[in-house]
Order: sequence, then C-alpha cells, then structure tokens
Amino acid sequence: MLDKLKFPDDLKNLRLNELRILCGEIRDKIVDVVSKNGGHLASNLGVIELTVALHKVFDFKKDDIVWDVGHQSYTHKILTGRLDELYTIRKKGGISGFPKIAESIFDSFGTGHSSTSISAALGISEAKNLSGRSDSKTVAVIGDGALTGGLAYEGLNNAGSLGRNFIVILNDNKMSISRNVGAIARYLSAVRLKASYLRAKGAVAWSLGKLPVIGDAIRRTLLYSKSALKKFLYGTIFENMGFLYYFVSDGHNLEELIKALSVIKNIKKPVLLHVRTVKGKGYIFAEKKPQEYHGTSNFDVNTGTGNRKAERKTFSSVFGEKICKIAKNDNRVCAITAAMKDGTGLNAFSKCFKDRFFDVGIAEEHAVTFAAGLAAKGMIPVFAVYSSFLQRSYDQILHDAALQNLRIILAIDRAGIVGQDGETHQGIFDVPFLNTIPNVEIYSPSFLFELETILEKLVKRGKGLIAIRYPKGSELYKPDDFGHKVDIDGDYYLLPSDDPCDTLIITYGRLFSNALLARKQLIESGKKVSVLKLNKIKPVSEEALKIAAGFRNVFFFEEGILNGGVGQIFKSEFLNYSDSNTKFVLKAIANKFVPHDTVDSSLASLGFDVNGMLKTISGGSAKYSISKIRYVC
Amino acid sequence: MLDKLKFPDDLKNLRLNELRILCGEIRDKIVDVVSKNGGHLASNLGVIELTVALHKVFDFKKDDIVWDVGHQSYTHKILTGRLDELYTIRKKGGISGFPKIAESIFDSFGTGHSSTSISAALGISEAKNLSGRSDSKTVAVIGDGALTGGLAYEGLNNAGSLGRNFIVILNDNKMSISRNVGAIARYLSAVRLKASYLRAKGAVAWSLGKLPVIGDAIRRTLLYSKSALKKFLYGTIFENMGFLYYFVSDGHNLEELIKALSVIKNIKKPVLLHVRTVKGKGYIFAEKKPQEYHGTSNFDVNTGTGNRKAERKTFSSVFGEKICKIAKNDNRVCAITAAMKDGTGLNAFSKCFKDRFFDVGIAEEHAVTFAAGLAAKGMIPVFAVYSSFLQRSYDQILHDAALQNLRIILAIDRAGIVGQDGETHQGIFDVPFLNTIPNVEIYSPSFLFELETILEKLVKRGKGLIAIRYPKGSELYKPDDFGHKVDIDGDYYLLPSDDPCDTLIITYGRLFSNALLARKQLIESGKKVSVLKLNKIKPVSEEALKIAAGFRNVFFFEEGILNGGVGQIFKSEFLNYSDSNTKFVLKAIANKFVPHDTVDSSLASLGFDVNGMLKTISGGSAKYSISKIRYVC
Repeated sequence: MLDKLKFPDDLKNLRLNELRILCGEIRDKIVDVVSKNGGHLASNLGVIELTVALHKVFDFKKDDIVWDVGHQSYTHKILTGRLDELYTIRKKGGISGFPKIAESIFDSFGTGHSSTSISAALGISEAKNLSGRSDSKTVAVIGDGALTGGLAYEGLNNAGSLGRNFIVILNDNKMSISRNVGAIARYLSAVRLKASYLRAKGAVAWSLGKLPVIGDAIRRTLLYSKSALKKFLYGTIFENMGFLYYFVSDGHNLEELIKALSVIKNIKKPVLLHVRTVKGKGYIFAEKKPQEYHGTSNFDVNTGTGNRKAERKTFSSVFGEKICKIAKNDNRVCAITAAMKDGTGLNAFSKCFKDRFFDVGIAEEHAVTFAAGLAAKGMIPVFAVYSSFLQRSYDQILHDAALQNLRIILAIDRAGIVGQDGETHQGIFDVPFLNTIPNVEIYSPSFLFELETILEKLVKRGKGLIAIRYPKGSELYKPDDFGHKVDIDGDYYLLPSDDPCDTLIITYGRLFSNALLARKQLIESGKKVSVLKLNKIKPVSEEALKIAAGFRNVFFFEEGILNGGVGQIFKSEFLNYSDSNTKFVLKAIANKFVPHDTVDSSLASLGFDVNGMLKTISGGSAKYSISKIRYVC
Repeated sequence: MLDKLKFPDDLKNLRLNELRILCGEIRDKIVDVVSKNGGHLASNLGVIELTVALHKVFDFKKDDIVWDVGHQSYTHKILTGRLDELYTIRKKGGISGFPKIAESIFDSFGTGHSSTSISAALGISEAKNLSGRSDSKTVAVIGDGALTGGLAYEGLNNAGSLGRNFIVILNDNKMSISRNVGAIARYLSAVRLKASYLRAKGAVAWSLGKLPVIGDAIRRTLLYSKSALKKFLYGTIFENMGFLYYFVSDGHNLEELIKALSVIKNIKKPVLLHVRTVKGKGYIFAEKKPQEYHGTSNFDVNTGTGNRKAERKTFSSVFGEKICKIAKNDNRVCAITAAMKDGTGLNAFSKCFKDRFFDVGIAEEHAVTFAAGLAAKGMIPVFAVYSSFLQRSYDQILHDAALQNLRIILAIDRAGIVGQDGETHQGIFDVPFLNTIPNVEIYSPSFLFELETILEKLVKRGKGLIAIRYPKGSELYKPDDFGHKVDIDGDYYLLPSDDPCDTLIITYGRLFSNALLARKQLIESGKKVSVLKLNKIKPVSEEALKIAAGFRNVFFFEEGILNGGVGQIFKSEFLNYSDSNTKFVLKAIANKFVPHDTVDSSLASLGFDVNGMLKTISGGSAKYSISKIRYVC
C-alpha cells in the first residue's frame, strides 16, 4: 500500500482496516530503515497510529503540525512524500532525522531540542489568526518528557490564555530519553489512573453531548472533564492552565484516535489531548528496552542484536567511571543530569550514589541554577550535559553560577561535531558562548586518560565554574606510547622536538590526533613542524602564546565556531607577543550551521581531517613570502 | 525601635504589637531611602510584614532564604545588620539593591533575574540534607509574576518530588512589573476567589488538627486542602506538583503570617504558602500606581511627585513611537514583550494594535520561539527586551530563529552599562553572545534619530534575525547639527575630514558621542584624528576594515565584554588588510562583571568617558614608536 498510494491525499479514502494495514507497513519500513541506517526507533514506533490518525483527520496542506524534538517524525515524513528518500535519512545529502522547513512544505517548523513545539505552534497559530486564516488548525505534538522543560510551560501559560484553533497533543509514554521523573511525571500517572478508572466504571463524558460529532465510542473513549465530572477528576493541571482536556487511553487504537481528533478539530478553544502510547510499540525488542532503542546504530531485525554500543571505551564511559571513583573518596561530589543518565555515562553513579544523583528532567536551566545552590552550600556539583543542550543554560551559567564564582563542574559531552543528528545537535557553540562569561575556565582533553586526569585535578580546586568538554565516542587516534612517556598535565603541551622548527600547528581536543598524523607526514617530506596542544583553552595560556610567537608559521585548527572561539582570542593576544613577520592561519567553522553527515565525513568537509590540515598548511606555505595574517575558513 | 535593637536576634523577643510598630518604622525608612536614592519601592513595601514574620519564625543563621529577583529584599537587609548602610544602597561602593552572598551571611544566594529562587533554594536544601543538616529549613520567596518563567516551573517539578524541609512562598500581588498575564495568572485569581469564599463560609482546614501547633485562628486562616477539602478546592496546581498548599489571605496581617509560618516550619514535605499581598502597601501613591513605583528615581515623599521619568525622549520612547508608525503601515508587524510593556516603550502599541501585541509573561525563551512561529507564517515579530534578560534566550535565538533564518527583530533595550541595578543587569553580553550565532545581524545606533532610520529600513528586509541595540535613557551628547547634514544610513560612518589623519577612533553606539568630544580636544591640541562609527556591528563591514587599515594608529572602544566582542573580531580581520606597522589598541570590558554605580560614573571607571578615551589615546601615543598591537583593558 505504501508504494502504491499517494500520500497524504490517498489516506483520506482509506477505511479503518486499511489504515491498520498501512500502519503495519509503516512499522516494518521504519524498523528496516533504522536497522540499516541507525536512528531513532522507539519514539517513532510509538506514534505511527497517532501520525496516521492526524493525517487522516487534518489536512496539513492547510493545517500545521509541529513535532516536539522531532525525532519521532519518520511516519510523518513517509506520509508526506519522503518515502523514497527514507533510506537516505541522516546521511550526507539525504533527508534529516528531524523536521526541516526547507525539506517539505509539510514541515511547518524545524525542531531538534526539546520543548519548543508549543511556543512555535502558538506563533504559527496566531500568525494565521491575524492573517484571517482562522479556519486553519495548528497542532503541537509533545512528549511527557519534553513537558518537564520550562519552555513548554511558558508556552502553555501563553497558549492557555491566547490560543484559538490550537491543539496540544501530549504523547505520554512515561519516558523522556530516560524514564521520566519529577512531580509532573508522577502527576501524569495519577491522571492516567483516574482516567482509566473512570473509563472502567463506564463513566461518560456527558458534556460531549453538546459537541457536533458524538458516538457512544467517543463517550466511552474521551473524558471531557468539564463542570460536574471536573470535580471528581479534580481538574487536570492543563485545565488549570486554560485548556480543554481530553484523554485517549490507547494511543495505538486508530478508531479511538480518529474519533477523538475529529471532535477536537471542531473546537475553537485551546485543547489538550492526552494520548497514552507505548514507546517502541510493535517491535518486541524496542518495546522491552525503549532506552536502548531510543537512538540506535544499525542492528539485526530478527534478533535485535548489534545495536549495543561497542565495548570500546568512550569519553562518556570514562567520565562515568572516573566520577564514581572521585565520588567514592569525596562525599561532596554530586552528579546532575537533564534526563540523559545513560547518554552521559551516569548510570553507575545513579546506582552507587543514589542520594547524590539528580535527574532533574529535561531542564538544563534548572540543572545549572540547582547546581549553583548545591555549590553555595559546599557541595561539588558535576552537571553532565550534551554541548548543544547546554545552550539552554547560558543565562544560568552567567547569572547564577559565574557571577557568584561558585564551584561547579560542567562535564560537556558531545562537544564538537556529532554527526548524523545534524545542525540542531552539533556541539560547536559551547566554547564561543562560554568564552564570553567571566570566571569560567574550559578544559579540552584529547585522550581518554586525560579526561580522567583533568577531572581528578579539578574536583579538588576551590572556586569557579569549570567546563570540561569532550567529544562523542572515543579518541580519533592515539599513538601507542602517548601519555606514558610524557606529562601532559599542564595547561598546554608542546610536542618535544630535537630539531628547531619554523612551523607550528596549534589545536585542542580530538583534533590533536589529526595534527599528530599531519605532522608525521610533513616531517617525512622534510618539513620542520611541531604541534602545540592546548589543554586549558580558557583563559588562553600566556606561556602558550609566547611559545607560539617563536615560530614563523602558525596554523590554528578549531573544531568550533570561529566568532568568539579560542582561535580568534588566541590570534588577537598572540600578536602582543609575536613580531609582525609571523604568519597566523586560523581555520575554524566559519559561522555557519553544519548539516548531518558522519563525524568523519563532516570533519573532512570542514578541513579538519589529516588531508584537510595538510592542504591548509601547504596552501599557507604557498603564500609563505607574504607576511600577512589571514583566515582560512 | 529600629535604631535601638539588634536584629535579627532581638526580633524573637518582640510581641505582636511591637512587631507592628517595627513594620511601620521599616516602611517609613524604606520610603525615605527610596525617595532619596531611587530604587525599587512598591515591591519592598509589599513584603515588609512577610519579611518580619519570616525572621520572627525562622533563624536565618541556620535556615536559608532566597529572594526571587531580589529587589524586594530591603526589609531583609534592614533586619540583618545593614540598616546603617541603607542610604548607600545602589550607590558606588554601597550595598547592592539585590541580595549578594558577598554582602552578608544572611544572603544565601544572589539574585537579579527572575524565577531562579526555587532552583537555587532546592540546591541549598539538598546540600544541607546531604550534609546531615536536615534540621535546617530553606525558603524561596517568589512573586506570581516570576512564576510565569519556565525556570520556576522546572524548579517546582524537581522540588515537588524531591524537596524535604523546603518551603516556597508565593508572594501573590497580581503583578509582575506589568500586570501579570497568562493562564497561570488567571488561574491564581480563581484560587484566591475560592480560598476567600471558603474562608467567608467559615470552612476550616480540618486536617490541621493533626499538626503540632493549632489554634482556631489558624483554622480560620489556613486552608490546608488535603483529602476531603481538596475535592472542593479541586486541588491547586501546586498540589498536583507535589506540594502541600497553604493560603494566607492577608499578607499584611502579622498574626496570620506568623501562625501560618509556625505550622509550616514543622512540616518535612515540600510546602507552598500562597500569600496575598498588596504591592506598594502603606504608601498611598505606590499602592495606587504600583507600576510607576516599581523602580523609581527620587521623589517627594509628601506629594509623591518627582518620580516620573523626565519628559526627555529616550531610546525606549523613540522605539515605541516608531514601531507604532511602522505597524500602522504594515499589518504584519507584531510586538512582543516579556512582562516589560512600559519599560520597553510598548504601551502605545499595546493600545493601538491590541491583536498584534503579545505580553507573554516573564518568559524570554518562549518569546523568541513564539516569534519564530509568527515569522514562519510571514508575520514580522519585534521582540522588545532588555539586554541582560535576553541572555535567557540564547538557545532559542540560535536553534529556533537563526538556524531557520527566520525574520525576527530583536529590539534590545538597556544595552551597555545600566547603572544602579548593577552586575546582574548590565547589558554587556548581548553583542558577544549574538556574535557567536550565524545568520544574525546586529545594529547599534548612537542617536535617537538613527534608531528610527534603522528600524524603518530593517523591517522591510526579507530574511534573518536582526538585533538593534540601544542604551538606557537617551543620547550622551549630540552635536546640534549632527544628522541633518550627513547621511549615516550605511553600515558605518567616517567623520569627514579636510586634513589627512594618522589616528582613528573606532566605536559604536552611544560611545560615539564621547569619541566626537575626545576628537575635538585632540584636534584642538594639534593632533590629526578621525572617528569611524560602526552602525552595523555584525558582520563587520569589510569597507570599514579597509578604511581603518589606512591609519597608523587605531583605537577601538567597546562598551561590552572583550571576549567575542566586535573589537576582537574587528582586530582579527583588520590584520588581513593592514600592514604590520599599524598600531591597534582595543579597549573593552576586560571579561569581568561590572558593579552598581551611576551610568556616567561606570563609564568613567571603565575608561569610556572623554577623559578615559584621551588617556588611552595619549597612553597609546607614548608608545608610538613600538609597532606592536596590544590590548588596553
């Protein structure tokens, strides 16, 4: 059916049993694609019926839908003309794993980070109301996990008093990426229980009688909790916030979904439809272990094997192990995660130090201010967070932590290029934005063992906010003997050299590996090159500046945004030490967003692989005679 | 009494009637201080009784209190040993208008921005629980306005499932700085009505019978809505989030407050005490017009006159007038404020274009993502916001607006030094953090008429996020004929000069005024100096770089943070155009926080007044012969 019909138009003519078959086909397709390409599986399997029902009832040429986070939009992509490109998903030049305005007219708004959908959809809805398009509906689909983010609440607060023709669908699967936590999650359990209880008792939503389309099935299905019934349900938090509240207990029952949506479609006021779904639905391995199948690499469909992360150590796992060791010896050390316990390597910590482990929900802002509170009373909070999500905490880092010079450790995972998740998830802004904040130090280990050393050293430090950033996965390359012979415990590390050199490569983090390999090739071709690796990147080491000033040609490679980056600061200050004949070439990410691709291929595209470095350096050499400082980016 | 007793200790021995007298003395004192120094009045008058009751019941040597926003902490300061310094408040070297850890052991956590208190207090509370100090209570005092911020909700979500010995006091005066709006505000009205109704009916909080300290007065006063009663009140949103809920209907009745707090003190679970207060209480002019007396300059106590903002035009007022004119001719133009309608000059707009005006509550994150939604459907949203509060929206600007290249205008008020509000409110980070974000342009007018020109020009532009930033108040100085003779509509403006010059001053925004005056003096003493003013500061104009490269001495003055600032970027790129004999001196704010002081005095301290500029330039000239590029900051 998938291959033969033209979607979404043909969907309108399908009957219920045909739609059920369609859902099965979509399910098989998604499992197949993700098993081959990797990607988000469990969340997509959870919303197949919901998405089909939405496209059946609404017309998203006219209406709009915003998918919160957006990694659950595969069915939506299939139903909006992107079936053929599905096997290109998350690949270079292929379709994105998230909605994108540029990709389809059916993607009303791009997403990636959590909790944006209500705000964005409300803007879309108001724009249409103002343009006389009040016949058009706007739908935000948001998970219960995303509902723990403050932005979602700000949106609800505004929408509940403003939103006309506005529908929020709460996709409740009891999960964020980790199991959902906090008061709201507990509260949703109570709502579900009550709703199910009422349903079992045969309670009907009497006030539905006033709505245009009613059948007994709906009466049994929906709980329209106004006036009388409201007292028993004692009002949901959503009604308190100005929404009409509906509940569908089985979010995989197409009939219930379609009927509920058909009713809601005709309501002018803000409506919240609470749908109970099962993450990973219909694929037994994902259903049993939704966390493992949240984001997955390729796997064998029949056995579900192969998707586990390789046994190889990663920066996340090394961080997780080390922070446990440190916490064992120092009971002031606390760990905080914003719903990313597994991804950040904090699983063991959460078990060993239950009291000192805090999963605060998808709430990066709160995580930092909460950490500042802990620090104000002498604890040593470590907030482990993905680089791109930390963007949410800019003001909290500045205003609550740094301004008071409180001791907090930010363990910034997924720093640098992250690969297939693409633009919204690249960890290329943390260095520039942290550079703008006083009292912040940033460290950037290149190798796993360094992360351990730096953590150990810095936890003992007395004051200030310290960021330690490290990439997704593991080292790019480490010479076998590296780190055994040399002490790289300082703020920088200059590769020892027997010969005097005229050319210097400066970099930090994982690019140091590529710099070592590039140097090797340059040496073999008779060039005289050394490498300066910055361990502490903020503030820039004066010693490192002086060393660099001793070279004739300096090439700085930075896996991050140019503006406000380390290279730009280094270059500015470097000129206080160098004479005017030194050439300084800075290669960073030229103030642009970086699309999805593999990490290796992205690094190559950006000129950060070994070949790219060699090209920059030889390109630089070609202009050797011109005593000019210039950017290459 | 204020002068004779030693607080807070002596408070414990005072009887109710003595406490009432004390409150009167404090009220007089605060009115007197603010009438002389300026400062926050209405909010302070609203919490005198609450603060006295808190210090009576709790011991803040052992317990902790966090004041949300913090401008209501004057009574707290008076009662914790800072009476003598009260007349220095907000003055250079004097005490801060906000709580500060460094100022007193009684200030558990510094505040300034809204909605941080619950998160910070929860961290403090957990730290004490972990350190075996579970006898110590932690109190967060938060206004109903601040409750519209997402961070507060993230804190509630975490606290409701976590907080032991944790008390949130909701100081409900129906106000943020503007009248409180949104669903939560509407909901609080309903709660107040219900609670008052129950009280009038003589309903008692029956389950209070189980608590240690009970009297009839409490039974009448508190509504402890558990089980039976809960059904009638149908549960507050706070109970839904895991809090025990109490209500005090008259937050100026010391007896009620003290009894309520005494009960709550003995509860181990998270408690929310909802207190109804009157902003401006006890000073008739402030009570009648709390918005006018929110933040005020000095005034006459007897008549309440003199506090009104001068009739002189400000950047805010010019923005407000101009955006109305633009909106009249273009019905796509919408205005958004985060509870700052008056401060940002949007009062007239809110009346003339009711449908296109959105006060979203204290919710800067939502404001930007909501604007992105509006823009996605062809509207032209203008978000008027104070620079330091925009820090909250970093990720939304990056991820929801810039990444999708949506047309949004950020009208950034209070850019640069803001004066007496001090460290937490300085608008010195917006340029560095916006500089890190691709697809963002920044404009910085120096004069009122330029703000009009730039707004007019940019609203018509098709794409991308545009920030227009302007300072508090008005122009520093404008030559009478300036702007009549010359066209400064381009990306930069070079002062015309008949003589060839060797020295160039570069700056942007209001510092251009000082640069003009400094130049005048230099010219008079025989120097040859020109001034280059940047109108568009991101991206840096290549033409401007080429012009600058033609001078021998370049002095760049920037009223903002050094790292990631325009000066640093300009300097880096400048070197691609200049020969190595040019001297480049960059003076910006050297990566530090700037304390409270008047604007003029702060600018002088930072070296941005005319004398400071002259000093930097002559200091630079002294080293004329050294062909070196260096920072002065």
